[in-house]
Amino acid sequence: MNARDVLERFKRGEIGLDRAEQLLKLDFLEVIGEHTIFDHAREARRGIPEIIFGETKSPQVVADIVGRVLSDREVILVSRASPEHLVAVKSVVDGETVRYVERAKMIVVDKRRERVAKGMVGILTAGSSDIAVAEEAKAVAEAMGCQVVTSYDVGVAALHRFMGPLMKMIDAGVDVLVVVAGMEGALPTVVSGLTDVPVIGVPTSVGYGYGGKGEAALMGMLQTCSPGLVVVNIDNGVAAGATAALISLRCRRHVQ
Amino acid sequence: MNARDVLERFKRGEIGLDRAEQLLKLDFLEVIGEHTIFDHAREARRGIPEIIFGETKSPQVVADIVGRVLSDREVILVSRASPEHLVAVKSVVDGETVRYVERAKMIVVDKRRERVAKGMVGILTAGSSDIAVAEEAKAVAEAMGCQVVTSYDVGVAALHRFMGPLMKMIDAGVDVLVVVAGMEGALPTVVSGLTDVPVIGVPTSVGYGYGGKGEAALMGMLQTCSPGLVVVNIDNGVAAGATAALISLRCRRHVQ
Amino acid sequence: MNARDVLERFKRGEIGLDRAEQLLKLDFLEVIGEHTIFDHAREARRGIPEIIFGETKSPQVVADIVGRVLSDREVILVSRASPEHLVAVKSVVDGETVRYVERAKMIVVDKRRERVAKGMVGILTAGSSDIAVAEEAKAVAEAMGCQVVTSYDVGVAALHRFMGPLMKMIDAGVDVLVVVAGMEGALPTVVSGLTDVPVIGVPTSVGYGYGGKGEAALMGMLQTCSPGLVVVNIDNGVAAGATAALISLRCRRHVQ
Amino acid sequence: MNARDVLERFKRGEIGLDRAEQLLKLDFLEVIGEHTIFDHAREARRGIPEIIFGETKSPQVVADIVGRVLSDREVILVSRASPEHLVAVKSVVDGETVRYVERAKMIVVDKRRERVAKGMVGILTAGSSDIAVAEEAKAVAEAMGCQVVTSYDVGVAALHRFMGPLMKMIDAGVDVLVVVAGMEGALPTVVSGLTDVPVIGVPTSVGYGYGGKGEAALMGMLQTCSPGLVVVNIDNGVAAGATAALISLRCRRHVQ
Amino acid sequence: MNARDVLERFKRGEIGLDRAEQLLKLDFLEVIGEHTIFDHAREARRGIPEIIFGETKSPQVVADIVGRVLSDREVILVSRASPEHLVAVKSVVDGETVRYVERAKMIVVDKRRERVAKGMVGILTAGSSDIAVAEEAKAVAEAMGCQVVTSYDVGVAALHRFMGPLMKMIDAGVDVLVVVAGMEGALPTVVSGLTDVPVIGVPTSVGYGYGGKGEAALMGMLQTCSPGLVVVNIDNGVAAGATAALISLRCRRHVQ
Amino acid sequence: MNARDVLERFKRGEIGLDRAEQLLKLDFLEVIGEHTIFDHAREARRGIPEIIFGETKSPQVVADIVGRVLSDREVILVSRASPEHLVAVKSVVDGETVRYVERAKMIVVDKRRERVAKGMVGILTAGSSDIAVAEEAKAVAEAMGCQVVTSYDVGVAALHRFMGPLMKMIDAGVDVLVVVAGMEGALPTVVSGLTDVPVIGVPTSVGYGYGGKGEAALMGMLQTCSPGLVVVNIDNGVAAGATAALISLRCRRHVQ
Amino acid sequence: MNARDVLERFKRGEIGLDRAEQLLKLDFLEVIGEHTIFDHAREARRGIPEIIFGETKSPQVVADIVGRVLSDREVILVSRASPEHLVAVKSVVDGETVRYVERAKMIVVDKRRERVAKGMVGILTAGSSDIAVAEEAKAVAEAMGCQVVTSYDVGVAALHRFMGPLMKMIDAGVDVLVVVAGMEGALPTVVSGLTDVPVIGVPTSVGYGYGGKGEAALMGMLQTCSPGLVVVNIDNGVAAGATAALISLRCRRHVQ
Amino acid sequence: MNARDVLERFKRGEIGLDRAEQLLKLDFLEVIGEHTIFDHAREARRGIPEIIFGETKSPQVVADIVGRVLSDREVILVSRASPEHLVAVKSVVDGETVRYVERAKMIVVDKRRERVAKGMVGILTAGSSDIAVAEEAKAVAEAMGCQVVTSYDVGVAALHRFMGPLMKMIDAGVDVLVVVAGMEGALPTVVSGLTDVPVIGVPTSVGYGYGGKGEAALMGMLQTCSPGLVVVNIDNGVAAGATAALISLRCRRHVQ
Repeated sequence: MNARDVLERFKRGEIGLDRAEQLLKLDFLEVIGEHTIFDHAREARRGIPEIIFGETKSPQVVADIVGRVLSDREVILVSRASPEHLVAVKSVVDGETVRYVERAKMIVVDKRRERVAKGMVGILTAGSSDIAVAEEAKAVAEAMGCQVVTSYDVGVAALHRFMGPLMKMIDAGVDVLVVVAGMEGALPTVVSGLTDVPVIGVPTSVGYGYGGKGEAALMGMLQTCSPGLVVVNIDNGVAAGATAALISLRCRRHVQ
Repeated sequence: MNARDVLERFKRGEIGLDRAEQLLKLDFLEVIGEHTIFDHAREARRGIPEIIFGETKSPQVVADIVGRVLSDREVILVSRASPEHLVAVKSVVDGETVRYVERAKMIVVDKRRERVAKGMVGILTAGSSDIAVAEEAKAVAEAMGCQVVTSYDVGVAALHRFMGPLMKMIDAGVDVLVVVAGMEGALPTVVSGLTDVPVIGVPTSVGYGYGGKGEAALMGMLQTCSPGLVVVNIDNGVAAGATAALISLRCRRHVQ
Repeated sequence: MNARDVLERFKRGEIGLDRAEQLLKLDFLEVIGEHTIFDHAREARRGIPEIIFGETKSPQVVADIVGRVLSDREVILVSRASPEHLVAVKSVVDGETVRYVERAKMIVVDKRRERVAKGMVGILTAGSSDIAVAEEAKAVAEAMGCQVVTSYDVGVAALHRFMGPLMKMIDAGVDVLVVVAGMEGALPTVVSGLTDVPVIGVPTSVGYGYGGKGEAALMGMLQTCSPGLVVVNIDNGVAAGATAALISLRCRRHVQ
Repeated sequence: MNARDVLERFKRGEIGLDRAEQLLKLDFLEVIGEHTIFDHAREARRGIPEIIFGETKSPQVVADIVGRVLSDREVILVSRASPEHLVAVKSVVDGETVRYVERAKMIVVDKRRERVAKGMVGILTAGSSDIAVAEEAKAVAEAMGCQVVTSYDVGVAALHRFMGPLMKMIDAGVDVLVVVAGMEGALPTVVSGLTDVPVIGVPTSVGYGYGGKGEAALMGMLQTCSPGLVVVNIDNGVAAGATAALISLRCRRHVQ
Repeated sequence: MNARDVLERFKRGEIGLDRAEQLLKLDFLEVIGEHTIFDHAREARRGIPEIIFGETKSPQVVADIVGRVLSDREVILVSRASPEHLVAVKSVVDGETVRYVERAKMIVVDKRRERVAKGMVGILTAGSSDIAVAEEAKAVAEAMGCQVVTSYDVGVAALHRFMGPLMKMIDAGVDVLVVVAGMEGALPTVVSGLTDVPVIGVPTSVGYGYGGKGEAALMGMLQTCSPGLVVVNIDNGVAAGATAALISLRCRRHVQ
Repeated sequence: MNARDVLERFKRGEIGLDRAEQLLKLDFLEVIGEHTIFDHAREARRGIPEIIFGETKSPQVVADIVGRVLSDREVILVSRASPEHLVAVKSVVDGETVRYVERAKMIVVDKRRERVAKGMVGILTAGSSDIAVAEEAKAVAEAMGCQVVTSYDVGVAALHRFMGPLMKMIDAGVDVLVVVAGMEGALPTVVSGLTDVPVIGVPTSVGYGYGGKGEAALMGMLQTCSPGLVVVNIDNGVAAGATAALISLRCRRHVQ
Repeated sequence: MNARDVLERFKRGEIGLDRAEQLLKLDFLEVIGEHTIFDHAREARRGIPEIIFGETKSPQVVADIVGRVLSDREVILVSRASPEHLVAVKSVVDGETVRYVERAKMIVVDKRRERVAKGMVGILTAGSSDIAVAEEAKAVAEAMGCQVVTSYDVGVAALHRFMGPLMKMIDAGVDVLVVVAGMEGALPTVVSGLTDVPVIGVPTSVGYGYGGKGEAALMGMLQTCSPGLVVVNIDNGVAAGATAALISLRCRRHVQ
Repeated sequence: MNARDVLERFKRGEIGLDRAEQLLKLDFLEVIGEHTIFDHAREARRGIPEIIFGETKSPQVVADIVGRVLSDREVILVSRASPEHLVAVKSVVDGETVRYVERAKMIVVDKRRERVAKGMVGILTAGSSDIAVAEEAKAVAEAMGCQVVTSYDVGVAALHRFMGPLMKMIDAGVDVLVVVAGMEGALPTVVSGLTDVPVIGVPTSVGYGYGGKGEAALMGMLQTCSPGLVVVNIDNGVAAGATAALISLRCRRHVQ
């Protein structure tokens, strides 16, 4: 119901002055023309599910939030979740809808019956230590309706290790690549130089000494000499997965 | 011509041993199956035109490169170019193909007769000081075949100033938004929170004091609480424009 | 007793030379005209209660200090206090005067019978992780005689979540707003742009990766494009609460 | 005219549907109840005049903006303005309304006939190199309707140099102190420890070597052991002056 | 087998088309002329053994990798290994081939019957806290076939303490010196100034306060006024040992 | 015995060629004129006792070093020592010569029968958290033969708290002041501005948020506007105590 | 005249109540016992002459300050002074009292007839680029009444280059050494390890790349493994010279 | 002549006491056994020619140093030299011995008649902006007697551009590779992963925004996942060239 509707219904007497004012005032953010961009269902509309940062919350608190959110949503994720969090979550929702992505320490609750992959995302990691971050990205992209193709620990020093997987992903038709790398973070640059698929680089806090907490990787990706590479913050698999899904869903919008 | 072709033609005697070896060895990067990902036309294939960084090169050097590149390309850009660079470039190419984007200090040479916009990109800036960077992004995206809708100096403190332009861009069907901001760099976060269009944040070196050379803006965008926002380096309009174009071209691939 | 008094009493022989010199010398900081700015009761006069940093002190040491200070003060706070500190403090003071603000980990001892709110302060937080810092600010401002209105976890991405609470605070007549935010720290800037009430921004160490220990939030608040925003150090709820109270008490000085 | 007014006038037929919708929709930020917080006159309502950053704009551009803004405002400031800016501004406005604050390099255009000081602000600087920043703060606070008492170059090493001026300011009834200091930036801490007047510290880029671009001063003020001190960014006289004025105007609101 | 060989064998019918294509395509990195630089045995060819970073892997995972790698290698190292890692490794390999370098927390598995020292490396440490890093370098260089002469805790303040050991190393004919130092990291500079043997400086995270995590040592070595000194990252004994061995092996190549 | 002595005694046949060469060569650092600056008793000659950093060493190792050093020295200190270290040390030396400075976590072993204070040092701390560092400085200065006058927790916000103790120290005739402060580290600057006694500032890692690990204090002391203040690294009580003692012993050299 | 004097003269009627109060109140900082620590002649009493930072002041302003200060002082210095400053200064003072230390860009005005060296300071520099800073230190120490022995460009890599000069300084009886060094800043550490004379290290902004603006040198000196070394800020020759003079004057106090 | 020689000649009366003492004392650094490591000809012995940093010295000063040094040396270099420096140098030496390496801004004076290349060094740059630094390295290595093979602007994104040149260098038998790169600095890592030739990475100050002054490149090289790569400071072509030459000369020592 937009502003015009409110006005007309008010004029016709279908709603009173107080109600009209209330609709326009309290919910004013809903009434800006047809766009209805601002609204209380913002997250749902953007297609990004609610993601709870579990690490700093008790199992009870997490379970409470999950229960409340699921009353009007179908999907919710808990990142940095412990097995205790899992037990607590399982106590409030239908166990069949709950999945624990161990390497990402992420709980995925998904009440949808049928899931049609509406997007296609590829994820590569340079080392085995980068996998947790990659799995976080994967879980988020999947929850947003994407199929995710992964290839982990493909290195950068040995080109033949990542050429094959990369080609298969491109053949498979991924719309965007998430490339996760720590240390000097060179893999996203090299990958980006080889393809016209947009690349999201995720620096990880893998390394040591000067620049070893992800700063070298972040700097290197930002300084990249290869246009076509964009970056999220250190270890931020969630942001990479969400943006990759947004891009792919956008690209497939016209297809399906 | 891929490896199999070389082998067969060699077997049939159409090419000699030396030629076959040369094709496989010198140009080996071209022969990896059908992908032909590595090749000397890499830039052209990725759709990103050659972009020369003019600031550190003399007009003569720039003109030489432009002349040479244009022998087998149709588009070339010179960033951070002075009027002297423009004069030198005009002396080596057909004047009608040259355009000078003054606010971006960018020379665009485009020999294509017809240009069909194959993508659609939106660009917003927070302040008027961010416009040079935005224009750089625009020139690159346009050279890559995108139509670009812009709205500059829309601020962040006054929401009504950017709501209108933003809605128009979304209505117009942009596939990706480039949001340029200095100082605290909050605009990309706010925009990203309002839409499901992916957002590329470009921090600019506009500000002063602590964090004033773009660091506050970069950090803020990387710390964003809104998934869906990715970032390029400070003042890097070229990277933002190129990636935005890659995303939009990808999204329109199936359409056109 | 100011310098003039000392001189006159000395002239009249009411005090001897030694005593006069002692008064002027040892306590010289008390005798600068009527201002008596420097004095051993400085803290009390400024209206800021003694605040003990509990984290680095043993329960016994804290209890000792509390007992000593309360011999001539009515209020004392212990920040970053554990339950052990609470037990120790309760053993030296009248239990009814002790309150433990759990979320702020703060012990408040207040011997005053009657408390009249002489000021009015509003506190907002962007996320739920910022609440501990906000509660610290609240406890300090209350101990200094202010009524505190709070609204936590109002986000920045979803404007309608903080518009309501903010308006209610402004209607309630708060003289100053404390806005607590981590990550990119954009909330204080946005709030400051909407009102003529002075805003104290408190960056928190909530975030991750580059700038994630509060630096992004601090930088963003310092770079703000909205005049009217001032800042305290990362996680420094005590300073924010104390300054907010000083401002509000000053504003109400003429009223009451 | 708030939302209720629009609704009632619309019901009474005084305005048509289109006009009502337009008022509510285009200017929706004006109709949120009585608060009228969001509006196109935001700056004017907050009492903070438009302040143009002159350094990066040509005299012509500055003059254009000044002319345009003054069509519906009475006061405008140009910071970091050169004599050339002054000439250009004088060419578009009544010369009697223009004042050039040389030490702050600030142009003040004020069309108001009568100016009643509605607030009272004190400004101190540690060194003579800090005066430009202090004058910037002063010009802004005055333009916002405050009387400003200043004392410059009062040092920190020699206490007697700032005790006198400080006491006079407090006697004069300032509601807030702006204390400007570079190098180690200790003056705001010392001043804050001596009074219950809230203090806004302004670190300046005066210093050399490690921490010499204002970082030592900024850090020192943020680390202050004296609650009651809040901070703005390095050299940001504008923000300090604006916030100081907001505080003082708030404090005097009930008086006048 | 290089490209030419493949071609000739293919022409002669010794291998079929598919096999030829496979050899050229899948293993293309092996066929670049005689160099065969890129290949799946890259590590072995470079003479640098596989080095597993144990710290972040479970004993079981480490044992699995060790077992797999040793199927076609003779040497493997596990850095930052605990006694538990040792037990696990011993369960999968012949115990006689396993050695635990306690001070370096490094497991060395070496199946070679005979070891001929083909290089000569000298290692010095400034303090006793630097020994763990030095031992890491030593274990790597030894595994790569070098004899290693060490002298630990030779200080920098007392020149006579390191003059003797240094001279003995030079007399012994070391081709390269690894000099490990924390705190101000001056030893590599002083040593480098005394000899024409190339020096690899290894800053360690030994120190405290400002620059105490190895940054002062790293900076000092990079700023050295003595040409002839190169540097690896903080605490990176592995890189220092590997590069030192590469240099010495190269120097001895013509000799043996 | 200097070079000349060696030569003459060699000529006279009192020592043989081998012995002469040995004296000149092995101990060459002793023979540079009368200065005998370089020698194996360097530490003893400089008057700075051996100080073992206990934190990273086992009780057994510490006890071994103590036992060995005391064979030809009279004083040795162990910093950052635990009670376990104390037990181990007591097992190897005469218990009466051992003292444990608890607040500094320092073991002092002193075999000298009689101790005459040959220097006079004053130590002040801003807060109570700075005392451990101050006690470290004190223990070192005392071991080097100085009498140490201390006054802890004298603050900086309240001038009268440190004026008295400071004056008493100056009256007592201290040759140098060690002033220990964390947070904003202003106390050394203020003290230095009040006296012509040289001041050694010791920043401590007391603080929080931006600059809170001692950087703000270090920067502030280095930026001081008061000449006469020199600095050691964060928390480095040992260096402050040693230098203070060197200065005072130098000053008293001519007296005693 | 101290507090007691004021009291007695007041009692005797030699001064009136107002005058007594004024003396005690306005000048209260002068009356704290015999110490008279706080006073308007503070700088003179500390023996540190007024030092004007010329760089940011016009010749006219500098000349004005010099003229005013010299009305009641005998010595004044202008640092970072240009030839224009010199001309201006010469126009207001007796030319014979003015000296220009070209390498330090420092103007020294000294009206004293007779100058007796009351202290003895040694100054060393590592490189020739450090000489300007050393000369600044020298000019200040001389103005404070010290004889200064210098040796410049003695390096650190070549020990024999600084051993001779160092020994001569120690023989000459310097009480303190100022050692100036850029790049890795190792010289002060090495010198400090060779002598019991206290050493003041002055890092200079000589260097390049990472840590090249003096940070490497500063960090290195702060991390020094040689107790007995204290530090001033980068390029701060003034502070080093002033503190060195304070130390030496203190040491010679009892002698003369 | 070592210590033993001096002693024997002294005993035999061939040299007097004073001469013997002088030899042992003044030149003591020459007499430590046969090594004669420390000596006044240190630079010449290390094979590294004197390299004067021209940028901060006047043409006259440079010419003076060159003239003086060449009295007993055959080679001298002036880095960061202007054409004016060249003119001045040519006025003091035989013009035929002077060469100006324009791209490196380096003057090479070489009086040797015959130059035999005793080493072999390869130098690669990623971009054309890195050439100046590479040429600096080349000039130094050549002056130290090495043949230098170069290949500039070989990129990292396009592998085929650097594979060819790299292979040719390895075939040519270079003992060490200097790889110069700015921006993300990935080239040295990639090269190092392809060969067993030791690699010296030189980060350059080519880049922009965050990490753009060479920090990203430096960090990336230090974080490299490829052992065998060592690093010098940003833009330090001199150090890279000198160390490369030391390594190659060492490797060829046994050959020639």
